[in-house]
Amino acid sequence: MANPQTIWYNWEKKLVETVDQRYLPFKNLIFEIKTLEDAQYAITDMVVRGAPLIGVTAAYGMFLAAYNFSGNDFSTSMNKAGEWLKSSRPTAVNLAFAVDEAISVISENSSVMENTQLLFEYAESLKQHEIECSKKIGLHGLDILKEIYLTKNGNPVQILTHCNAGRLACVELGTATAPIYLAHEAGIPVHVWVDETRPRNQGARLTAWELGEAGIAHTVIPDNAGGHLMQHQMVDMVIVGSDRTTINGDVANKIGTYLKALAAMDNGIPFFVALPSTTIDWTISDGISEIPIEQRDANEVTMMEGKIGNEVYEFRILPENSPVANYGFDVTPARLVTGLITERGICKANREGIVSLFPEKLRK
Amino acid sequence: MANPQTIWYNWEKKLVETVDQRYLPFKNLIFEIKTLEDAQYAITDMVVRGAPLIGVTAAYGMFLAAYNFSGNDFSTSMNKAGEWLKSSRPTAVNLAFAVDEAISVISENSSVMENTQLLFEYAESLKQHEIECSKKIGLHGLDILKEIYLTKNGNPVQILTHCNAGRLACVELGTATAPIYLAHEAGIPVHVWVDETRPRNQGARLTAWELGEAGIAHTVIPDNAGGHLMQHQMVDMVIVGSDRTTINGDVANKIGTYLKALAAMDNGIPFFVALPSTTIDWTISDGISEIPIEQRDANEVTMMEGKIGNEVYEFRILPENSPVANYGFDVTPARLVTGLITERGICKANREGIVSLFPEKLRK
Repeated sequence: MANPQTIWYNWEKKLVETVDQRYLPFKNLIFEIKTLEDAQYAITDMVVRGAPLIGVTAAYGMFLAAYNFSGNDFSTSMNKAGEWLKSSRPTAVNLAFAVDEAISVISENSSVMENTQLLFEYAESLKQHEIECSKKIGLHGLDILKEIYLTKNGNPVQILTHCNAGRLACVELGTATAPIYLAHEAGIPVHVWVDETRPRNQGARLTAWELGEAGIAHTVIPDNAGGHLMQHQMVDMVIVGSDRTTINGDVANKIGTYLKALAAMDNGIPFFVALPSTTIDWTISDGISEIPIEQRDANEVTMMEGKIGNEVYEFRILPENSPVANYGFDVTPARLVTGLITERGICKANREGIVSLFPEKLRK
Repeated sequence: MANPQTIWYNWEKKLVETVDQRYLPFKNLIFEIKTLEDAQYAITDMVVRGAPLIGVTAAYGMFLAAYNFSGNDFSTSMNKAGEWLKSSRPTAVNLAFAVDEAISVISENSSVMENTQLLFEYAESLKQHEIECSKKIGLHGLDILKEIYLTKNGNPVQILTHCNAGRLACVELGTATAPIYLAHEAGIPVHVWVDETRPRNQGARLTAWELGEAGIAHTVIPDNAGGHLMQHQMVDMVIVGSDRTTINGDVANKIGTYLKALAAMDNGIPFFVALPSTTIDWTISDGISEIPIEQRDANEVTMMEGKIGNEVYEFRILPENSPVANYGFDVTPARLVTGLITERGICKANREGIVSLFPEKLRK
């Protein structure tokens, strides 16, 4: 890979560049973000996705709003920009978090140019923070993998993951995949069962692709298969990411995660959620009643992209008149989660566990 | 629909005709079965699928083997034909059942022509039996729907189903869908959440199509969505079919069924399995260790069929080098099943329940 990061500022072109995830694995294209509107489009249309990367993209978007500002009332304009950006996707808390933090770095006493610089620095620092979080999550998760490996008589550790909480959902290394990448580097054999993750196939399209690029053994399975594999001792642990985690440890993640958590619990298999603390919503406790679940376009279910030869097409896979529902996420109750792997260590998925790692958040 | 049945003998052409389910909903074609080999191909390539319909197709296949017989040793030839046919798909017990029953009607003292006639009569009687079973399953299941409807203040009964245990899996009415069709006829409003059912999309392609043809309200959802719907009280009951049910009430059905059963249990939602007794395997008790789970071709996961305009194409939907696993079924343990809806009534999913309805089977 020329650039192992998923988003960066191109100093020559004076714009932000990101991997266009809509076309992977069929085409590996770069998407240019020149304006706030480009950033909003990239988030809405899922050019970028994954809670950490959405946050970083939003931070760059706020910088670009300032960079392109012309007019009189900078502060009002930036607040409006922030509100608009926040409305692009409702579930991941990182979006609102990054926008609010960006707004908070703006100083009334500074010039537009100075504020633009501050916003750029904030975006870069958030990006750096996410990179460091991924690294630390990887190291903490690696401890779990090492422990499981000791029981495997030299056989690969079998990990099941859902959706893409990989490099492509973050800036580097990923969240759920970070321990996997570090285990692979450390010579611990791993094999990943990759849930296809309908309807947008982020597992089959993104996770399979990035694991393949990294040379990590994996097998793509339909989302339906995980329960069967767990019943037959073919999975040692489940690791997923999170779009939003409540202070009580409830986890919103890609639709279908809850079903895998149920199967893991039913078969005594550890179910871990890897997340940077930017993904924790410190304001809510009950995930099922309080986290808004995005409903997305029916086309994501009725249509699919695929290749014939080297050409990519979009085709209809459902009967013409069948209605469709498309919920983006579900909530896994904390009781089904073995542990949260954060940048500060591993904790139980409950208030006590989370606060033990992030005591300063309780004080807020 | 010109013919509401899925399989029939065409007296004029002297062959068996069936709906070719490989092309629905894009094309509604008839497949001709003239020989044992055609029947075996139809079962293996899933021209026909669904435990009851596989059984009836196998019975016709045995008749055709006799009809086309030339040679000396009829009995050995028929036994060989039966063994070969039984090996086409391992999970549904109806296949072996129909072949064994067909073999048992052959009489050493009868001529080939007389035996051919006996085999034809057996196929027709098995078909008639499946039609009657569907009707009775429908009536017993209707009682459950009526009871739920009383609690709904006039709102539709919300049913979730997985795969296709519809008319297309049987001869008429279906198993899981039979109560739904009868409720619709009786003016009880129903709405069906149709699991897409990856990898072969029998829900999106077949169940959505047949419910649409019958004018029954339904919504196609990705297999991942059911847990979320159940958490939010959007499902009143789950009904699925079965490919094989053990004497202890463990249920093998399309891969992913187990995950829905877990979600139903976790949310206190009744989970029913509708099955004719031909689907019960009286010889085994533990489903997870004893029912063989078919592994099918990787192409079913890596490729998908869809329409562009009016043309149907096959597309590649995965990265080129990603390995794939394709398990056809999983086993739902009896403890997750609220009840079995059979042609003789509804019983608990355990030995006592099953034997109370089919006492003569215990004696065997």
